[in-house]
Amino acid sequence: MNIGIIGLGKMGYNLALNLLDHQHNVVGFDKNEEQAASIAHQNYQPQSSVADLVQHLPVPRIVWLMVPAGEVTEKVIQELVPLLEKGDILIDGGNSHYKDTMKRKHFLDAQDIAFFDCGTSGGTDGARNGACTMIGGDKETFKQIEPLFQDISTDNGYLYTGETGSGHFLKMVHNGMEYGMMQAIAEGFDILHKSDFNYDYEKVAKVFNHGSVIRSWLMELAEQAFAKDAQLEQIRGIMHSSGEGKWTVETALDYEVAAPVIALSLMMRYRSLEDDTFTGKVVAALRNEFGGHDVVKNN
Amino acid sequence: MNIGIIGLGKMGYNLALNLLDHQHNVVGFDKNEEQAASIAHQNYQPQSSVADLVQHLPVPRIVWLMVPAGEVTEKVIQELVPLLEKGDILIDGGNSHYKDTMKRKHFLDAQDIAFFDCGTSGGTDGARNGACTMIGGDKETFKQIEPLFQDISTDNGYLYTGETGSGHFLKMVHNGMEYGMMQAIAEGFDILHKSDFNYDYEKVAKVFNHGSVIRSWLMELAEQAFAKDAQLEQIRGIMHSSGEGKWTVETALDYEVAAPVIALSLMMRYRSLEDDTFTGKVVAALRNEFGGHDVVKNN
Repeated sequence: MNIGIIGLGKMGYNLALNLLDHQHNVVGFDKNEEQAASIAHQNYQPQSSVADLVQHLPVPRIVWLMVPAGEVTEKVIQELVPLLEKGDILIDGGNSHYKDTMKRKHFLDAQDIAFFDCGTSGGTDGARNGACTMIGGDKETFKQIEPLFQDISTDNGYLYTGETGSGHFLKMVHNGMEYGMMQAIAEGFDILHKSDFNYDYEKVAKVFNHGSVIRSWLMELAEQAFAKDAQLEQIRGIMHSSGEGKWTVETALDYEVAAPVIALSLMMRYRSLEDDTFTGKVVAALRNEFGGHDVVKNN
Repeated sequence: MNIGIIGLGKMGYNLALNLLDHQHNVVGFDKNEEQAASIAHQNYQPQSSVADLVQHLPVPRIVWLMVPAGEVTEKVIQELVPLLEKGDILIDGGNSHYKDTMKRKHFLDAQDIAFFDCGTSGGTDGARNGACTMIGGDKETFKQIEPLFQDISTDNGYLYTGETGSGHFLKMVHNGMEYGMMQAIAEGFDILHKSDFNYDYEKVAKVFNHGSVIRSWLMELAEQAFAKDAQLEQIRGIMHSSGEGKWTVETALDYEVAAPVIALSLMMRYRSLEDDTFTGKVVAALRNEFGGHDVVKNN
């Protein structure tokens, strides 16, 4: 098939190579021209604009967005849509908020452009060698593009999830689960670390990955990380987040779901961003006020 | 090798079969004689008492306890130790508290009996076909019994963890991680369940297990569970716990480790055991007191 990819960053680049491996023809655009030109393959053509990309695709066109969620995605869609025609297919493979996706569906429906949201998991390695994809959109039209997902996903690694928005929603919740699982694993290693025993964390992660109940890809990644730096001395415990955990918690609030572990995992990430906290100052001040307990003074 | 197993319940029974598969000779005792007699194998002999079991083992004896942690384990050890001799080896394969294990080590050291604690994960299927084992005890003596662990564990599925107590400690923390991971996964499915989308949870778990970041054995078990009962309508959300999660949280408190997700996972289990809560009554009463908010009356 012929696919246009907009956005050839870490994910889009690897997705393009994955598609090329599967005998698809790819035209690509990235705002960084060098990046777009960095793929050398007989079935690949870099394009110098969104308009060029659209022109180099046979109709009905299939355009795959792999750009940052939010403003960038919105801007690209606004630029792209006037160039597309009825019957063309647009896939948003980024991490867009499902509510944005649902709004865009209305807009794209009005133009008769089929719109699919594709949540993608598995990291860059997955994008390159076999991703996990969850796709929402019109069920009938999905059949046209299903072979693409079959090709780029690992075996059994794609799922048609229902109406538009359901793919991004599922990917969002997947990331929420991921936050909680990571925090639970990390807290366990912290207890081991502060205990009186001396564990080799790499070996611990390795044995956990062989026959235990908690064997998982995250534990394999822990094993890799400890292999590189046995006590993780070279990194600080600052835990950034990229939005989907927050959205999961907001969604739990919207639907009034008790999801304390996912919420707390997110908040522990926020806590990790601060060297000191105002919460800590307030509690220390109150203990001092009512009980005369010592406070630690700022130098 | 010759091994005596005391306790042939779900774990001990499967462990015995596993050892027999690996050409070891097993003598077994269970307080339920029928259970002890239920294994038919040329290299297996049921015994009718702990004393008989000890008599039917060549010295140095290897005795493996697979009985419930706490009083039962203590009682069996008290009965067993006078029958053992210097140089014999005792393995506690149950889920004993590591502090009990460390106390028992002192007691057994005084009798010159080598004592090992073995944390075992992977459920009954693991015990039968390849467990994950983490073993604490004297490093030199461990070499004598290492082949046993090599045989009963899955490939790369055993780890010598250090001094006595470190095996049970590690297994305890493993279970703490497990609580948090399970709660995170479950909260995610709850959000999907209360959302406006209609997901097939079995298919969701399946796609998550193929290429996603959260692929894990727990997610495979979720897939199995949803395959049996798509909406889990046949079971209630009552989450029992068997002690190790609680111990993990107590240990986090002892070492002053911030482990909120593991702690909260445990407390959500406690919450699930109550149809109504006193917390709920107190909050409802206070809202009524200060704001006249309606309360739901008991019928």
